[in-house]
Amino acid sequence: MNGIGAHEVIIETPDHDKKLSDLDEDHITEVILAWQQRILDLKQDERFKYIVVFKNHGEAAGASLEHTHTQLVAMPIIPKRVIEEIEGGRRYYDFKERCVYCDIVTQEIGDDVRVVSANETFLAIEPFAARFPFETWILPKKHKSAFEESQKHEIIHLARILKEVLMKLDVALSNPPYNFILHTLPLRGDNRSWYHWHIEIMPKLTKVAGFEWGSGFYINPTAPEEAAKYLREITITTLEK
Amino acid sequence: MNGIGAHEVIIETPDHDKKLSDLDEDHITEVILAWQQRILDLKQDERFKYIVVFKNHGEAAGASLEHTHTQLVAMPIIPKRVIEEIEGGRRYYDFKERCVYCDIVTQEIGDDVRVVSANETFLAIEPFAARFPFETWILPKKHKSAFEESQKHEIIHLARILKEVLMKLDVALSNPPYNFILHTLPLRGDNRSWYHWHIEIMPKLTKVAGFEWGSGFYINPTAPEEAAKYLREITITTLEK
Repeated sequence: MNGIGAHEVIIETPDHDKKLSDLDEDHITEVILAWQQRILDLKQDERFKYIVVFKNHGEAAGASLEHTHTQLVAMPIIPKRVIEEIEGGRRYYDFKERCVYCDIVTQEIGDDVRVVSANETFLAIEPFAARFPFETWILPKKHKSAFEESQKHEIIHLARILKEVLMKLDVALSNPPYNFILHTLPLRGDNRSWYHWHIEIMPKLTKVAGFEWGSGFYINPTAPEEAAKYLREITITTLEK
Repeated sequence: MNGIGAHEVIIETPDHDKKLSDLDEDHITEVILAWQQRILDLKQDERFKYIVVFKNHGEAAGASLEHTHTQLVAMPIIPKRVIEEIEGGRRYYDFKERCVYCDIVTQEIGDDVRVVSANETFLAIEPFAARFPFETWILPKKHKSAFEESQKHEIIHLARILKEVLMKLDVALSNPPYNFILHTLPLRGDNRSWYHWHIEIMPKLTKVAGFEWGSGFYINPTAPEEAAKYLREITITTLEK
Protein backbone atom coordinates (compact mmCIF):
# COMPACT_ATOMS: atom_id res chain seq x y z
CA MET A 1 0.00 0.00 0.00
CA ASN A 2 1.26 3.49 -0.77
CA GLY A 3 -0.12 6.93 0.03
CA ILE A 4 -1.81 7.54 -3.33
CA GLY A 5 -5.23 9.20 -3.30
CA ALA A 6 -7.53 11.86 -4.70
CA HIS A 7 -9.63 14.49 -2.99
CA GLU A 8 -12.21 16.36 -5.05
CA VAL A 9 -14.72 19.04 -4.11
CA ILE A 10 -17.97 19.15 -6.08
CA ILE A 11 -19.31 22.71 -5.98
CA GLU A 12 -23.06 22.23 -6.17
CA THR A 13 -24.04 25.70 -7.38
CA PRO A 14 -22.33 29.01 -8.17
CA ASP A 15 -24.81 30.69 -5.78
CA HIS A 16 -23.03 31.23 -2.45
CA ASP A 17 -26.26 31.59 -0.48
CA LYS A 18 -28.01 28.39 -1.49
CA LYS A 19 -27.86 25.05 0.24
CA LEU A 20 -28.30 21.66 -1.46
CA SER A 21 -31.96 21.37 -0.44
CA ASP A 22 -32.71 24.79 -2.04
CA LEU A 23 -31.68 23.55 -5.49
CA ASP A 24 -34.41 22.18 -7.73
CA GLU A 25 -34.63 18.48 -8.56
CA ASP A 26 -33.00 18.83 -11.98
CA HIS A 27 -30.13 20.66 -10.42
CA ILE A 28 -29.67 18.04 -7.67
CA THR A 29 -29.80 15.38 -10.40
CA GLU A 30 -26.83 17.14 -12.04
CA VAL A 31 -24.95 17.15 -8.73
CA ILE A 32 -25.49 13.42 -8.24
CA LEU A 33 -24.54 12.73 -11.88
CA ALA A 34 -21.29 14.58 -11.14
CA TRP A 35 -20.57 12.20 -8.21
CA GLN A 36 -21.22 9.28 -10.53
CA GLN A 37 -19.05 10.66 -13.33
CA ARG A 38 -16.13 11.34 -11.03
CA ILE A 39 -16.36 7.84 -9.49
CA LEU A 40 -16.47 6.21 -12.95
CA ASP A 41 -13.44 8.23 -14.00
CA LEU A 42 -11.36 7.61 -10.86
CA LYS A 43 -12.31 3.91 -10.89
CA GLN A 44 -10.16 3.49 -14.00
CA ASP A 45 -7.12 4.01 -11.81
CA GLU A 46 -6.41 0.50 -10.54
CA ARG A 47 -4.62 1.84 -7.46
CA PHE A 48 -7.89 3.09 -5.94
CA LYS A 49 -9.84 0.57 -3.89
CA TYR A 50 -12.58 2.77 -2.49
CA ILE A 51 -14.17 6.19 -2.95
CA VAL A 52 -15.97 7.92 -0.07
CA VAL A 53 -18.52 10.55 -1.16
CA PHE A 54 -19.77 12.71 1.67
CA LYS A 55 -21.19 16.08 2.61
CA ASN A 56 -20.57 18.21 5.69
CA HIS A 57 -23.25 20.87 6.04
CA GLY A 58 -22.90 23.52 8.74
CA GLU A 59 -20.01 24.29 11.05
CA ALA A 60 -21.01 21.82 13.78
CA ALA A 61 -20.91 19.07 11.15
CA GLY A 62 -17.32 19.98 10.28
CA ALA A 63 -17.96 22.10 7.17
CA SER A 64 -14.91 24.30 6.72
CA LEU A 65 -16.33 26.02 3.62
CA GLU A 66 -19.67 27.76 3.72
CA HIS A 67 -20.39 27.45 -0.02
CA THR A 68 -22.45 24.29 -0.56
CA HIS A 69 -20.33 21.36 -1.75
CA THR A 70 -19.91 17.59 -1.69
CA GLN A 71 -16.53 15.89 -1.25
CA LEU A 72 -15.05 12.77 -2.72
CA VAL A 73 -11.96 10.96 -1.41
CA ALA A 74 -10.43 8.08 -3.40
CA MET A 75 -8.25 5.75 -1.32
CA PRO A 76 -5.81 2.88 -1.90
CA ILE A 77 -7.49 0.78 0.83
CA ILE A 78 -11.01 -0.17 1.83
CA PRO A 79 -11.97 1.82 4.94
CA LYS A 80 -12.52 0.07 8.29
CA ARG A 81 -16.22 1.03 8.45
CA VAL A 82 -16.88 -0.35 4.97
CA ILE A 83 -15.15 -3.63 5.85
CA GLU A 84 -17.34 -3.90 8.97
CA GLU A 85 -20.48 -3.33 6.87
CA ILE A 86 -19.44 -5.91 4.30
CA GLU A 87 -18.56 -8.46 6.99
CA GLY A 88 -21.91 -7.90 8.70
CA GLY A 89 -23.73 -8.31 5.39
CA ARG A 90 -21.78 -11.47 4.59
CA ARG A 91 -22.56 -13.06 7.98
CA TYR A 92 -26.27 -12.34 7.50
CA TYR A 93 -26.15 -13.75 3.97
CA ASP A 94 -24.40 -16.91 5.15
CA PHE A 95 -27.21 -17.42 7.63
CA LYS A 96 -30.30 -16.33 5.64
CA GLU A 97 -29.14 -16.45 2.01
CA ARG A 98 -30.60 -12.97 1.58
CA CYS A 99 -29.22 -9.43 1.57
CA VAL A 100 -29.80 -7.82 4.97
CA TYR A 101 -30.63 -4.46 3.36
CA CYS A 102 -33.24 -6.07 1.09
CA ASP A 103 -34.76 -7.61 4.22
CA ILE A 104 -34.70 -4.21 5.94
CA VAL A 105 -36.52 -2.65 2.95
CA THR A 106 -39.20 -5.37 2.99
CA GLN A 107 -39.65 -5.23 6.75
CA GLU A 108 -39.77 -1.43 6.96
CA ILE A 109 -42.35 -1.21 4.16
CA GLY A 110 -44.37 -3.88 5.98
CA ASP A 111 -44.09 -2.33 9.48
CA ASP A 112 -44.62 1.18 8.10
CA VAL A 113 -43.59 2.95 11.33
CA ARG A 114 -40.06 4.08 10.46
CA VAL A 115 -40.70 5.04 6.81
CA VAL A 116 -40.15 8.72 6.04
CA SER A 117 -40.86 8.64 2.32
CA ALA A 118 -40.74 6.43 -0.77
CA ASN A 119 -40.85 6.70 -4.53
CA GLU A 120 -40.64 4.23 -7.45
CA THR A 121 -36.99 3.44 -6.78
CA PHE A 122 -36.08 4.54 -3.26
CA LEU A 123 -37.12 4.19 0.35
CA ALA A 124 -36.21 6.68 3.10
CA ILE A 125 -36.35 5.38 6.66
CA GLU A 126 -35.22 6.09 10.18
CA PRO A 127 -33.12 2.97 10.85
CA PHE A 128 -34.28 0.61 13.62
CA ALA A 129 -31.05 1.11 15.62
CA ALA A 130 -30.54 4.79 14.78
CA ARG A 131 -27.38 6.15 16.44
CA PHE A 132 -28.52 9.78 16.26
CA PRO A 133 -31.83 11.64 16.51
CA PHE A 134 -33.36 11.90 13.01
CA GLU A 135 -30.66 9.71 11.41
CA THR A 136 -32.16 8.91 8.00
CA TRP A 137 -31.17 6.31 5.41
CA ILE A 138 -32.08 6.31 1.72
CA LEU A 139 -31.88 2.89 0.05
CA PRO A 140 -32.74 1.56 -3.42
CA LYS A 141 -35.76 -0.71 -2.98
CA LYS A 142 -34.23 -3.30 -5.29
CA HIS A 143 -30.87 -4.96 -4.67
CA LYS A 144 -28.15 -2.68 -6.08
CA SER A 145 -24.55 -2.89 -4.87
CA ALA A 146 -22.65 -0.17 -6.68
CA PHE A 147 -24.00 3.39 -6.75
CA GLU A 148 -21.99 4.26 -9.86
CA GLU A 149 -23.94 1.67 -11.90
CA SER A 150 -27.18 3.64 -11.39
CA GLN A 151 -29.32 4.47 -14.44
CA LYS A 152 -30.21 8.07 -15.21
CA HIS A 153 -33.86 7.59 -14.20
CA GLU A 154 -32.76 6.15 -10.85
CA ILE A 155 -30.60 9.19 -10.22
CA ILE A 156 -33.57 11.44 -10.98
CA HIS A 157 -35.56 9.52 -8.35
CA LEU A 158 -32.66 9.77 -5.91
CA ALA A 159 -32.48 13.55 -6.40
CA ARG A 160 -36.21 13.75 -5.70
CA ILE A 161 -36.16 11.78 -2.44
CA LEU A 162 -32.90 13.39 -1.26
CA LYS A 163 -34.37 16.87 -1.73
CA GLU A 164 -37.57 15.83 0.01
CA VAL A 165 -35.76 14.32 3.01
CA LEU A 166 -33.39 17.28 3.36
CA MET A 167 -36.31 19.73 3.18
CA LYS A 168 -38.21 17.77 5.82
CA LEU A 169 -35.14 17.82 8.08
CA ASP A 170 -34.77 21.58 7.46
CA VAL A 171 -38.37 22.14 8.57
CA ALA A 172 -38.29 19.70 11.50
CA LEU A 173 -34.95 20.83 12.91
CA SER A 174 -34.61 24.43 11.59
CA ASN A 175 -31.86 23.89 9.03
CA PRO A 176 -29.68 21.58 11.14
CA PRO A 177 -26.00 20.91 10.55
CA TYR A 178 -25.66 17.40 9.08
CA ASN A 179 -23.33 14.92 7.42
CA PHE A 180 -24.32 12.47 4.77
CA ILE A 181 -22.24 9.61 3.44
CA LEU A 182 -22.68 7.47 0.36
CA HIS A 183 -22.09 3.84 1.35
CA THR A 184 -21.24 1.89 -1.77
CA LEU A 185 -19.42 -1.26 -2.89
CA PRO A 186 -15.60 -1.20 -3.04
CA LEU A 187 -14.31 -0.55 -6.56
CA ARG A 188 -12.74 -4.01 -6.94
CA GLY A 189 -13.64 -7.49 -5.77
CA ASP A 190 -16.85 -9.28 -5.06
CA ASN A 191 -19.40 -8.90 -2.21
CA ARG A 192 -22.21 -8.03 -4.63
CA SER A 193 -24.72 -10.47 -3.14
CA TRP A 194 -24.67 -8.98 0.36
CA TYR A 195 -23.82 -5.34 -0.24
CA HIS A 196 -26.57 -2.83 -1.01
CA TRP A 197 -25.60 0.81 -1.53
CA HIS A 198 -27.35 3.53 0.45
CA ILE A 199 -26.98 7.05 1.82
CA GLU A 200 -26.82 7.72 5.57
CA ILE A 201 -27.83 11.22 6.66
CA MET A 202 -26.89 12.23 10.21
CA PRO A 203 -28.12 15.55 11.61
CA LYS A 204 -25.67 16.81 14.24
CA LEU A 205 -27.91 17.40 17.24
CA THR A 206 -26.08 15.39 19.91
CA LYS A 207 -22.36 15.34 20.71
CA VAL A 208 -20.16 12.28 20.45
CA ALA A 209 -18.50 12.19 23.88
CA GLY A 210 -16.52 9.92 26.20
CA PHE A 211 -19.10 7.15 26.40
CA GLU A 212 -19.36 6.84 22.62
CA TRP A 213 -15.56 6.97 22.18
CA GLY A 214 -15.03 4.38 24.90
CA SER A 215 -17.73 1.96 23.80
CA GLY A 216 -18.60 2.48 20.13
CA PHE A 217 -22.23 2.63 21.33
CA TYR A 218 -24.42 5.68 20.79
CA ILE A 219 -26.90 7.34 23.13
CA ASN A 220 -29.92 8.44 21.09
CA PRO A 221 -32.66 10.26 23.00
CA THR A 222 -35.15 10.21 20.08
CA ALA A 223 -36.91 6.99 19.09
CA PRO A 224 -36.70 6.44 15.31
CA GLU A 225 -40.46 5.77 15.21
CA GLU A 226 -41.16 9.23 16.66
CA ALA A 227 -38.72 10.93 14.31
CA ALA A 228 -40.26 9.09 11.32
CA LYS A 229 -43.80 10.09 12.32
CA TYR A 230 -42.72 13.70 12.68
CA LEU A 231 -40.92 13.76 9.31
CA ARG A 232 -43.75 11.95 7.52
CA GLU A 233 -46.26 14.55 8.65
CA ILE A 234 -44.28 17.45 7.20
CA THR A 235 -45.66 18.29 3.76
CA ILE A 236 -43.29 19.79 1.23
CA THR A 237 -45.51 21.66 -1.19
CA THR A 238 -42.80 22.91 -3.53
CA LEU A 239 -41.82 19.42 -4.66
CA GLU A 240 -42.39 18.57 -8.33
CA LYS A 241 -44.57 15.60 -9.17
CA MET B 1 -28.64 -10.23 27.42
CA ASN B 2 -30.99 -7.87 29.21
CA GLY B 3 -30.98 -4.11 29.66
CA ILE B 4 -29.40 -4.03 33.14
CA GLY B 5 -26.82 -1.33 33.84
CA ALA B 6 -25.54 1.35 36.18
CA HIS B 7 -24.61 4.95 35.54
CA GLU B 8 -22.76 6.84 38.26
CA VAL B 9 -21.42 10.37 38.39
CA ILE B 10 -18.30 10.99 40.48
CA ILE B 11 -18.32 14.62 41.62
CA GLU B 12 -14.66 15.48 41.88
CA THR B 13 -14.89 18.48 44.23
CA PRO B 14 -17.63 20.52 45.96
CA ASP B 15 -16.07 23.64 44.38
CA HIS B 16 -18.13 24.55 41.31
CA ASP B 17 -15.38 26.66 39.76
CA LYS B 18 -12.54 24.15 39.78
CA LYS B 19 -11.58 21.75 37.04
CA LEU B 20 -9.86 18.39 37.56
CA SER B 21 -6.40 19.78 36.73
CA ASP B 22 -6.83 22.51 39.38
CA LEU B 23 -7.12 19.94 42.18
CA ASP B 24 -3.93 18.98 44.02
CA GLU B 25 -2.37 15.56 43.61
CA ASP B 26 -3.77 14.16 46.86
CA HIS B 27 -7.23 15.25 45.80
CA ILE B 28 -6.89 13.69 42.32
CA THR B 29 -5.65 10.51 44.03
CA GLU B 30 -8.94 10.47 45.98
CA VAL B 31 -10.92 10.88 42.76
CA ILE B 32 -9.11 7.96 41.11
CA LEU B 33 -9.51 5.84 44.26
CA ALA B 34 -13.25 6.55 43.97
CA TRP B 35 -13.26 5.16 40.40
CA GLN B 36 -11.46 2.06 41.67
CA GLN B 37 -13.78 1.60 44.65
CA ARG B 38 -16.90 1.89 42.51
CA ILE B 39 -15.53 -0.58 39.93
CA LEU B 40 -14.64 -3.09 42.66
CA ASP B 41 -18.12 -2.76 44.14
CA LEU B 42 -20.04 -3.02 40.84
CA LYS B 43 -17.82 -5.92 39.73
CA GLN B 44 -19.48 -8.08 42.39
CA ASP B 45 -22.65 -7.98 40.31
CA GLU B 46 -22.14 -10.91 37.92
CA ARG B 47 -24.47 -9.37 35.35
CA PHE B 48 -21.99 -6.61 34.53
CA LYS B 49 -19.41 -7.45 31.89
CA TYR B 50 -17.72 -4.10 31.44
CA ILE B 51 -17.43 -0.68 33.09
CA VAL B 52 -16.55 2.40 31.04
CA VAL B 53 -15.03 5.26 33.07
CA PHE B 54 -14.81 8.54 31.18
CA LYS B 55 -14.75 12.29 31.48
CA ASN B 56 -16.29 14.94 29.24
CA HIS B 57 -14.78 18.34 29.93
CA GLY B 58 -16.22 21.42 28.22
CA GLU B 59 -19.34 21.79 26.13
CA ALA B 60 -17.68 20.89 22.81
CA ALA B 61 -16.64 17.57 24.38
CA GLY B 62 -20.25 16.82 25.28
CA ALA B 63 -20.23 17.88 28.94
CA SER B 64 -23.83 18.58 29.91
CA LEU B 65 -22.91 19.58 33.48
CA GLU B 66 -20.40 22.32 34.16
CA HIS B 67 -19.39 21.09 37.63
CA THR B 68 -16.32 18.88 37.23
CA HIS B 69 -17.16 15.17 37.27
CA THR B 70 -16.21 11.74 35.95
CA GLN B 71 -18.79 9.21 34.78
CA LEU B 72 -18.97 5.46 35.05
CA VAL B 73 -21.27 3.19 33.05
CA ALA B 74 -21.56 -0.52 33.90
CA MET B 75 -22.89 -2.65 31.05
CA PRO B 76 -24.11 -6.22 30.51
CA ILE B 77 -21.98 -6.56 27.36
CA ILE B 78 -18.41 -5.83 26.32
CA PRO B 79 -18.42 -2.73 24.08
CA LYS B 80 -17.50 -2.98 20.38
CA ARG B 81 -14.40 -0.76 20.77
CA VAL B 82 -13.07 -2.87 23.65
CA ILE B 83 -13.57 -6.07 21.65
CA GLU B 84 -11.63 -4.50 18.75
CA GLU B 85 -8.78 -3.57 21.10
CA ILE B 86 -8.66 -7.04 22.62
CA GLU B 87 -8.73 -8.71 19.19
CA GLY B 88 -5.93 -6.46 17.96
CA GLY B 89 -3.88 -7.26 21.07
CA ARG B 90 -4.51 -10.96 20.67
CA ARG B 91 -3.44 -10.99 17.02
CA TYR B 92 -0.20 -9.19 17.91
CA TYR B 93 0.41 -11.61 20.80
CA ASP B 94 -0.17 -14.63 18.54
CA PHE B 95 2.46 -13.26 16.20
CA LYS B 96 5.07 -11.84 18.61
CA GLU B 97 4.28 -13.54 21.92
CA ARG B 98 4.44 -10.11 23.54
CA CYS B 99 1.89 -7.49 24.65
CA VAL B 100 1.63 -4.76 22.00
CA TYR B 101 1.30 -2.04 24.64
CA CYS B 102 4.47 -3.28 26.42
CA ASP B 103 6.23 -3.07 23.05
CA ILE B 104 4.86 0.45 22.54
CA VAL B 105 6.19 1.49 25.98
CA THR B 106 9.66 0.08 25.21
CA GLN B 107 9.79 1.58 21.73
CA GLU B 108 8.53 5.02 22.77
CA ILE B 109 11.04 5.23 25.66
CA GLY B 110 13.76 4.20 23.18
CA ASP B 111 12.71 6.60 20.38
CA ASP B 112 12.04 9.41 22.87
CA VAL B 113 10.24 11.63 20.32
CA ARG B 114 6.61 11.08 21.32
CA VAL B 115 7.10 10.96 25.10
CA VAL B 116 5.32 13.75 27.00
CA SER B 117 6.25 12.72 30.53
CA ALA B 118 7.11 9.73 32.70
CA ASN B 119 7.37 8.78 36.35
CA GLU B 120 8.26 5.61 38.29
CA THR B 121 5.09 3.82 37.17
CA PHE B 122 3.60 5.60 34.15
CA LEU B 123 4.48 6.84 30.70
CA ALA B 124 2.55 9.60 28.87
CA ILE B 125 2.94 9.66 25.08
CA GLU B 126 1.40 11.03 21.93
CA PRO B 127 0.50 7.76 20.16
CA PHE B 128 2.25 7.00 16.85
CA ALA B 129 -1.05 6.94 14.94
CA ALA B 130 -2.79 9.72 16.90
CA ARG B 131 -6.32 10.31 15.58
CA PHE B 132 -6.55 13.83 17.01
CA PRO B 133 -4.14 16.73 17.58
CA PHE B 134 -2.60 16.38 21.05
CA GLU B 135 -4.22 12.98 21.67
CA THR B 136 -2.31 11.69 24.73
CA TRP B 137 -2.15 8.21 26.26
CA ILE B 138 -1.07 7.35 29.79
CA LEU B 139 0.08 3.73 30.23
CA PRO B 140 1.56 1.76 33.12
CA LYS B 141 5.18 0.98 32.15
CA LYS B 142 4.82 -2.59 33.40
CA HIS B 143 2.23 -5.02 32.08
CA LYS B 144 -1.02 -4.46 33.98
CA SER B 145 -4.37 -5.54 32.56
CA ALA B 146 -7.01 -4.42 35.04
CA PHE B 147 -7.01 -0.86 36.34
CA GLU B 148 -8.99 -1.82 39.43
CA GLU B 149 -6.13 -4.05 40.63
CA SER B 150 -3.84 -1.00 40.98
CA GLN B 151 -1.95 -0.52 44.25
CA LYS B 152 -2.35 2.70 46.22
CA HIS B 153 1.17 3.93 45.32
CA GLU B 154 0.43 3.35 41.63
CA ILE B 155 -2.72 5.45 41.89
CA ILE B 156 -0.69 8.24 43.54
CA HIS B 157 1.68 8.11 40.54
CA LEU B 158 -1.28 8.10 38.15
CA ALA B 159 -2.76 11.19 39.84
CA ARG B 160 0.60 12.93 39.47
CA ILE B 161 1.06 12.24 35.75
CA LEU B 162 -2.63 12.86 34.95
CA LYS B 163 -2.48 16.28 36.64
CA GLU B 164 0.77 17.08 34.84
CA VAL B 165 -0.58 16.09 31.41
CA LEU B 166 -3.87 17.95 31.90
CA MET B 167 -2.01 21.08 33.07
CA LYS B 168 0.30 20.90 30.04
CA LEU B 169 -2.72 20.58 27.73
CA ASP B 170 -4.38 23.54 29.52
CA VAL B 171 -1.29 25.68 28.88
CA ALA B 172 -0.69 24.47 25.32
CA LEU B 173 -4.28 24.71 24.15
CA SER B 174 -5.82 27.32 26.53
CA ASN B 175 -8.02 25.03 28.61
CA PRO B 176 -9.36 22.91 25.73
CA PRO B 177 -12.50 20.80 25.86
CA TYR B 178 -11.49 17.15 26.09
CA ASN B 179 -12.65 13.60 26.68
CA PHE B 180 -10.69 10.94 28.44
CA ILE B 181 -11.53 7.27 28.66
CA LEU B 182 -10.16 4.54 30.88
CA HIS B 183 -9.47 1.49 28.73
CA THR B 184 -9.36 -1.55 31.01
CA LEU B 185 -9.87 -5.31 30.92
CA PRO B 186 -13.46 -6.66 30.85
CA LEU B 187 -14.66 -7.71 34.31
CA ARG B 188 -14.87 -11.42 33.44
CA GLY B 189 -12.87 -13.76 31.25
CA ASP B 190 -9.28 -13.97 30.21
CA ASN B 191 -7.22 -11.78 27.78
CA ARG B 192 -4.74 -10.81 30.53
CA SER B 193 -1.63 -11.56 28.48
CA TRP B 194 -2.45 -9.14 25.66
CA TYR B 195 -4.51 -6.43 27.35
CA HIS B 196 -2.76 -3.51 29.05
CA TRP B 197 -4.93 -0.85 30.68
CA HIS B 198 -4.39 2.80 29.80
CA ILE B 199 -6.08 6.20 29.64
CA GLU B 200 -6.72 7.94 26.30
CA ILE B 201 -7.09 11.74 26.47
CA MET B 202 -8.56 13.42 23.40
CA PRO B 203 -8.69 17.23 23.23
CA LYS B 204 -11.60 18.32 21.03
CA LEU B 205 -9.90 20.61 18.52
CA THR B 206 -11.07 19.07 15.23
CA LYS B 207 -14.56 17.95 14.23
CA VAL B 208 -15.50 14.41 13.35
CA ALA B 209 -17.23 14.85 9.99
CA GLY B 210 -18.39 12.92 6.93
CA PHE B 211 -15.01 11.47 6.01
CA GLU B 212 -14.43 10.07 9.49
CA TRP B 213 -17.99 8.68 9.70
CA GLY B 214 -17.70 7.11 6.27
CA SER B 215 -14.29 5.58 6.69
CA GLY B 216 -13.44 5.17 10.37
CA PHE B 217 -10.18 6.97 9.51
CA TYR B 218 -9.18 10.27 11.14
CA ILE B 219 -7.62 13.35 9.63
CA ASN B 220 -5.08 14.73 12.10
CA PRO B 221 -3.31 17.93 11.05
CA THR B 222 -0.78 17.82 13.94
CA ALA B 223 2.09 15.30 13.92
CA PRO B 224 2.32 13.52 17.31
CA GLU B 225 6.08 14.25 17.41
CA GLU B 226 5.41 18.00 17.20
CA ALA B 227 2.67 17.85 19.83
CA ALA B 228 4.95 15.83 22.15
CA LYS B 229 7.83 18.28 21.73
CA TYR B 230 5.51 21.18 22.51
CA LEU B 231 4.03 19.50 25.60
CA ARG B 232 7.44 18.34 26.87
CA GLU B 233 8.77 21.87 26.79
CA ILE B 234 5.97 23.24 29.00
CA THR B 235 7.20 23.34 32.60
CA ILE B 236 4.61 23.00 35.31
CA THR B 237 6.17 24.64 38.36
CA THR B 238 3.35 23.98 40.82
CA LEU B 239 3.75 20.21 40.70
CA GLU B 240 4.85 18.48 43.89
CA LYS B 241 8.04 16.43 43.81
